Amino acid sequence: MEVLAVLNLGDFAQAFSKMGMFPVFDLAYYIVSILYLKYEPGSVEVSRRSPVASWLCAMLYCFGSYILADIMLGSSPIDYFQHNSHILLASAVWYLIFYCPLNLFYKCVAFLPVKLVLVALKEVVRTRKIAAGVHHAHHAYHHGFFIMVIVGYVKGSGVALISNFEQLLRGVWRPDTNEILNMSFPTKASLYGAILFTMQEAHWLPVSKSVLILVFTLFMVTTKVFMTARHSHGSPFALIESWTCHLLFGSPLGGGEDDHHHAAAAAPSSPLKTKEELSEGVRKRKAKKAE
Amino acid sequence: MEVLAVLNLGDFAQAFSKMGMFPVFDLAYYIVSILYLKYEPGSVEVSRRSPVASWLCAMLYCFGSYILADIMLGSSPIDYFQHNSHILLASAVWYLIFYCPLNLFYKCVAFLPVKLVLVALKEVVRTRKIAAGVHHAHHAYHHGFFIMVIVGYVKGSGVALISNFEQLLRGVWRPDTNEILNMSFPTKASLYGAILFTMQEAHWLPVSKSVLILVFTLFMVTTKVFMTARHSHGSPFALIESWTCHLLFGSPLGGGEDDHHHAAAAAPSSPLKTKEELSEGVRKRKAKKAE
Amino acid sequence: MEVLAVLNLGDFAQAFSKMGMFPVFDLAYYIVSILYLKYEPGSVEVSRRSPVASWLCAMLYCFGSYILADIMLGSSPIDYFQHNSHILLASAVWYLIFYCPLNLFYKCVAFLPVKLVLVALKEVVRTRKIAAGVHHAHHAYHHGFFIMVIVGYVKGSGVALISNFEQLLRGVWRPDTNEILNMSFPTKASLYGAILFTMQEAHWLPVSKSVLILVFTLFMVTTKVFMTARHSHGSPFALIESWTCHLLFGSPLGGGEDDHHHAAAAAPSSPLKTKEELSEGVRKRKAKKAE
Repeated sequence: MEVLAVLNLGDFAQAFSKMGMFPVFDLAYYIVSILYLKYEPGSVEVSRRSPVASWLCAMLYCFGSYILADIMLGSSPIDYFQHNSHILLASAVWYLIFYCPLNLFYKCVAFLPVKLVLVALKEVVRTRKIAAGVHHAHHAYHHGFFIMVIVGYVKGSGVALISNFEQLLRGVWRPDTNEILNMSFPTKASLYGAILFTMQEAHWLPVSKSVLILVFTLFMVTTKVFMTARHSHGSPFALIESWTCHLLFGSPLGGGEDDHHHAAAAAPSSPLKTKEELSEGVRKRKAKKAE
Repeated sequence: MEVLAVLNLGDFAQAFSKMGMFPVFDLAYYIVSILYLKYEPGSVEVSRRSPVASWLCAMLYCFGSYILADIMLGSSPIDYFQHNSHILLASAVWYLIFYCPLNLFYKCVAFLPVKLVLVALKEVVRTRKIAAGVHHAHHAYHHGFFIMVIVGYVKGSGVALISNFEQLLRGVWRPDTNEILNMSFPTKASLYGAILFTMQEAHWLPVSKSVLILVFTLFMVTTKVFMTARHSHGSPFALIESWTCHLLFGSPLGGGEDDHHHAAAAAPSSPLKTKEELSEGVRKRKAKKAE
Repeated sequence: MEVLAVLNLGDFAQAFSKMGMFPVFDLAYYIVSILYLKYEPGSVEVSRRSPVASWLCAMLYCFGSYILADIMLGSSPIDYFQHNSHILLASAVWYLIFYCPLNLFYKCVAFLPVKLVLVALKEVVRTRKIAAGVHHAHHAYHHGFFIMVIVGYVKGSGVALISNFEQLLRGVWRPDTNEILNMSFPTKASLYGAILFTMQEAHWLPVSKSVLILVFTLFMVTTKVFMTARHSHGSPFALIESWTCHLLFGSPLGGGEDDHHHAAAAAPSSPLKTKEELSEGVRKRKAKKAE
């Protein structure tokens, strides 16, 4: 019986890891990504004033991970733009989210139950991207473990890592913070995921890649759906990170006022939250006001 | 008779599209480009304090389109710098424009009739660059229509697209605007040109490439010469764009006060004009004062 | 007798230019580079708040020259990260300098006599990097003299050329200055060295490469050790540069108040010194206060 269960799990994981992402999962990815772009203050005005800038930002949100990974591996940064159907689908989503009459499409996809499903599908794509990034880097650099982690990381985090420059495209400049200084949950999870997948690729983990994909997907989906439903931006890693950083790097425990105190001198500690971590409620209000 | 006329036009277009650009046309391109650099406030001071920074800016003005296109296609960004004669010619122009005794060279080339000829020659080069960029991208990505448009676009627009970073090299930082948010006429025309040449390359336009090059060159030359002569920065596309954007993207008609009103919240709407669109008169006064 | 001396010198230069840099010289390079990172105001706070950002900055300090050269030649910017042992060594140095209990490691390596030895070893690596960069570019572009100079230059200067973006990673943004506008001694020396090595590669200099490496290394080591020992930031090129720039580029002689006067209008002349030129004493005080 147990053997059967394991076999079945292995088979299921295998099938799951082979499942095509286009178009359903990719569509969800585009919708959630461009939704987050619309939540950004000022993005609606930019879409009115300069549709080209708005479209470019939307493409960065949808394909930033491919662009960054291609740069890291020395390929053409717009290599992925050869997939016309993907670009057209993402462009259609961008148009519907920003310019649909009565804002109908936006209202549908931002409706919480719908959004939770889309967020779940997006996390499935994210995990697959990390695994593909690590695999791709492994192919190019057989023992380049750091390169594998970096490529998997940028594949998972995407536009967040270049948010300063994405904002610059929209005429916004916030040099006092960036995604590396203040990592959001998806960025952190991408880093840990990239490390796990690299360890799997180097045969340091006693699991098959398909099982790892399945397990990591389940973790990401449940965590992200829970966080979106609760409008929370706490991270499940907070406690363990706090202790590890305290022991290894002498970071203050809790990270509360002491952190604040320290930071004041160096970089003006900014009250800005990172992209995906901003309270959804606040963002929606902003987005509504902007229209 | 008519057949003969068509044949002749075809032959002429063929010959025109095969005509070499080096050195006469390229020289005009370098002169006009570095002239625009000298019009930039502060560039004369930089040329005195740091000749290396000034030279680098001049190279970006002259070869920015090659650098950007090479980046987009994943080649070495300084690949074009292997053409020593082009670099030396551009460097000579830079030296003469910035350091010629009595500012003699600058006065000659900035003299309106001379300048109009040079501007006309520059637009010939621009059109050829767009066509070459689209063709090059078509060679690398046979069905990558978006890639063709992007490469043609950056080949036509050149340094304008990275003006924020070119300014940073001179110690100037204006994050609230960029060439994508506020497109100048040459940038817009490059975008439309890149789309046209891509359609031609994909056989969606019933004209030969040489005829398209001829027609687009004529359009660019007449428009740009007229605009330079009139010190105008209105765009011939303004009316049709205004209506298209209104219908497709809900942009306010006219783009005047309403636009201003909207933008005020998001990006502080800046009174800065883009590089090539600044009134020539104002710029000349600034450049003179700076000397 | 004289022939013998020349032979011996040639042999010695040959042996010196073949000497392996890993691990001793590279270790010194990493230590001095990360020491300079710790001198940067705010870097200690960043190491507490975000170890990932601090590690990335350290990697940029250690491997910035490889990253830049790879970008310039169109390879993967993280190509060098395939050398796991180098990355691990640099990471160990980073950990020891920033997190060693009682700040012991930092105190040891920042102790002047130790530091002078390390600085000397670092300059040996710098010269070798310039020579290797020029040689690498020569291999790719046989007559691309400008490309050789550029690649040799970025190999010698490393992170200094992208210090604006390295600072941005730490949440600091100083757009009014950069390493090109205000070149420090190592950056200038790298430029001159790259020109010399390019001339040697093009057979315009009547010396062998190994002799040039030996002579340039001796010059760099003595100058840099002397400057570090004296806490000086004067450049040995100052006088000759001042006259050359005055004759060629009309720069004001002396570069003192007149320069200041000119710059005031354009870029707000900043009192910030560049990285490696800041008085060591002041920096140490800052670094100590920050802990």
